[in-house]
Amino acid sequence: MRALRYHGPGDLRVEHDIAEPECLPHQVKVRPAWCGICGSDLHAYLSDKVIPLRDVPHPLTGETWPIVFGHEFSGDIVAVGSDVAKDPEGPKVGDRVACQPTICCNRCHSCKEGTVNCCDDLGFIGLMGGGGGLSDFICIDAKFAHKLPDSISYEIGALVEPLSVAWHAVEIAAIKPGDDVLVMGAGPIGLAVIQCLKAQNLGGQIIVVELSGKRKEFARQCGATTVLDPQEEDVVAKCRSLTGGQGPAVALECAGVAASMNAACRAVRTKGLIVNVALWEEPVPIDMMALLFGEKRLATAISLTASDFKAVIDALESGRLQVEGMITHRIKMDEVVHKGFEALMTQKDTTIKVLVDCRI
Amino acid sequence: MRALRYHGPGDLRVEHDIAEPECLPHQVKVRPAWCGICGSDLHAYLSDKVIPLRDVPHPLTGETWPIVFGHEFSGDIVAVGSDVAKDPEGPKVGDRVACQPTICCNRCHSCKEGTVNCCDDLGFIGLMGGGGGLSDFICIDAKFAHKLPDSISYEIGALVEPLSVAWHAVEIAAIKPGDDVLVMGAGPIGLAVIQCLKAQNLGGQIIVVELSGKRKEFARQCGATTVLDPQEEDVVAKCRSLTGGQGPAVALECAGVAASMNAACRAVRTKGLIVNVALWEEPVPIDMMALLFGEKRLATAISLTASDFKAVIDALESGRLQVEGMITHRIKMDEVVHKGFEALMTQKDTTIKVLVDCRI
Repeated sequence: MRALRYHGPGDLRVEHDIAEPECLPHQVKVRPAWCGICGSDLHAYLSDKVIPLRDVPHPLTGETWPIVFGHEFSGDIVAVGSDVAKDPEGPKVGDRVACQPTICCNRCHSCKEGTVNCCDDLGFIGLMGGGGGLSDFICIDAKFAHKLPDSISYEIGALVEPLSVAWHAVEIAAIKPGDDVLVMGAGPIGLAVIQCLKAQNLGGQIIVVELSGKRKEFARQCGATTVLDPQEEDVVAKCRSLTGGQGPAVALECAGVAASMNAACRAVRTKGLIVNVALWEEPVPIDMMALLFGEKRLATAISLTASDFKAVIDALESGRLQVEGMITHRIKMDEVVHKGFEALMTQKDTTIKVLVDCRI
Repeated sequence: MRALRYHGPGDLRVEHDIAEPECLPHQVKVRPAWCGICGSDLHAYLSDKVIPLRDVPHPLTGETWPIVFGHEFSGDIVAVGSDVAKDPEGPKVGDRVACQPTICCNRCHSCKEGTVNCCDDLGFIGLMGGGGGLSDFICIDAKFAHKLPDSISYEIGALVEPLSVAWHAVEIAAIKPGDDVLVMGAGPIGLAVIQCLKAQNLGGQIIVVELSGKRKEFARQCGATTVLDPQEEDVVAKCRSLTGGQGPAVALECAGVAASMNAACRAVRTKGLIVNVALWEEPVPIDMMALLFGEKRLATAISLTASDFKAVIDALESGRLQVEGMITHRIKMDEVVHKGFEALMTQKDTTIKVLVDCRI
């Protein structure tokens, strides 16, 4: 079958002679329809810090390079494993699904509690083995195939994963009705966070900090009530004046830049919360005294759980989430490298979500 | 009157011609008995980053150098202001008290909620104006003079403030019965934290990380169940093995060293909490990925509130807190610099609390 595989930093290849995966008893076999490319993919593509190194295979998949890419995908179930077939409530051949890309041990304390995103050996399909969405077929655990209602297209289905990451972060933030919220960065995850905040309709302001002109516009379209440019304004002072002198109750850090993180630490109100959603390659120099004076707290949100997937699918079905505008590029599998990854690098400002049609 | 005043980095002077303060209507006048010297005093003594600079007086006291030192003190009330005199429930001349050194605006949101330690303009008596404990007399807000029961000596009364800082941090940590707790650093605040944990009798392990031999011994005496030396052991691995593979639920960072903070971030269990109690001069390089994988949280605890003061006085009175062993040095006012501050610098390992007799 065909698949896009990573063979080392900067080396992605569309290959045509990959063995088709076999469906294990607890799995379903999915034929991907659309698959998104995200910042983590780009990061994984360029570095050797995400994909398991040759001598350090992922502890659960046992895999290393070459790795099939793609973790934001929708598709159809084309086969079910023997155990799945016996479950009258389980997924069926023909189901249209959005796929949760979690790799987890199913044994640790977190897995047993359902917080699989905190698994001791957490990994991601499409980055750490177990196949990926950028292929003709993939077999995944049946519990991670989430049925899409007819009203949700395959394209929107491919957005369920990044939206669930944002939804999960908003859940961690535990925002109360009326709380003003600060979103640092309006890249794909920042924009998804804005959408999820809007969908939850909590009533507070959504203040967004972003440098790029195009992204500022996207942020406004997604539901930002104010967009601040840190090159033009004193973000901390402006956040205070917008919130009656107090500062926002919560900030979600989606920029992955230390200056942004520290602006968030300074801007939130006394006893406020900063939720880190970004991934970091290096230690982040935190202005601890800014947290200390005011007893502010820093939480972290990683990936998602099945309940986030379900909540996003519900919000999409009900129309509370309206995300068509996030899809800025639609490309073919053969164009993944030069149109997909290159667009994410060179047209960062105007690229939100690149979707790959996995079937042409 | 006599007072110890800071005239700039490294310049502390015992002066004898300082004007005696006048008691305002809401204040009480205290004659200090014993006053402790702590790490913040040392830090303030050596640097120009704590005491208000000549051109940046504290917004509430309006004071700058010279500043009277001393914020951990007990004493007697020798006069009360006109408003205080009218309050039948208020403090009286002759009351033995421990003094809460809070400087706060009484107007901001935090002050109105009673969380004066989060005041927008938080300051500390003995560091930022309003006089200090290392003097013959000081006038403080009546609500910050906490009556000592007869069973608590003036010497122990001078420990109420540092113990309240620790008590407050333990409150912020919201430890559940049976939770294992990690304490990073067994300096004066780390040891006070251990004592407060022990006094609250929550039943979990108290694992302490400390380099110095003498402090390790103090930690054991205070109630540590295990003391780990990071030069000899892998703290993270050892914490896991001591806690059934999970890691402690909570860590309290009292060392003020980045390596210690990051060991705490790695050691706590999934969804665990790190509480920063230390003060920092520079941004702290935080291993954000260690927090992110496992969705750990970082909280901060600064200073104390009146309820912490009351809780500590109660715990001392009931005998749940036994802290005599923390007093390692008793000195006279004239010896403050060469025996007090010098001991904190040169005999760090064997110095926990230096108490100054303010009356000889």
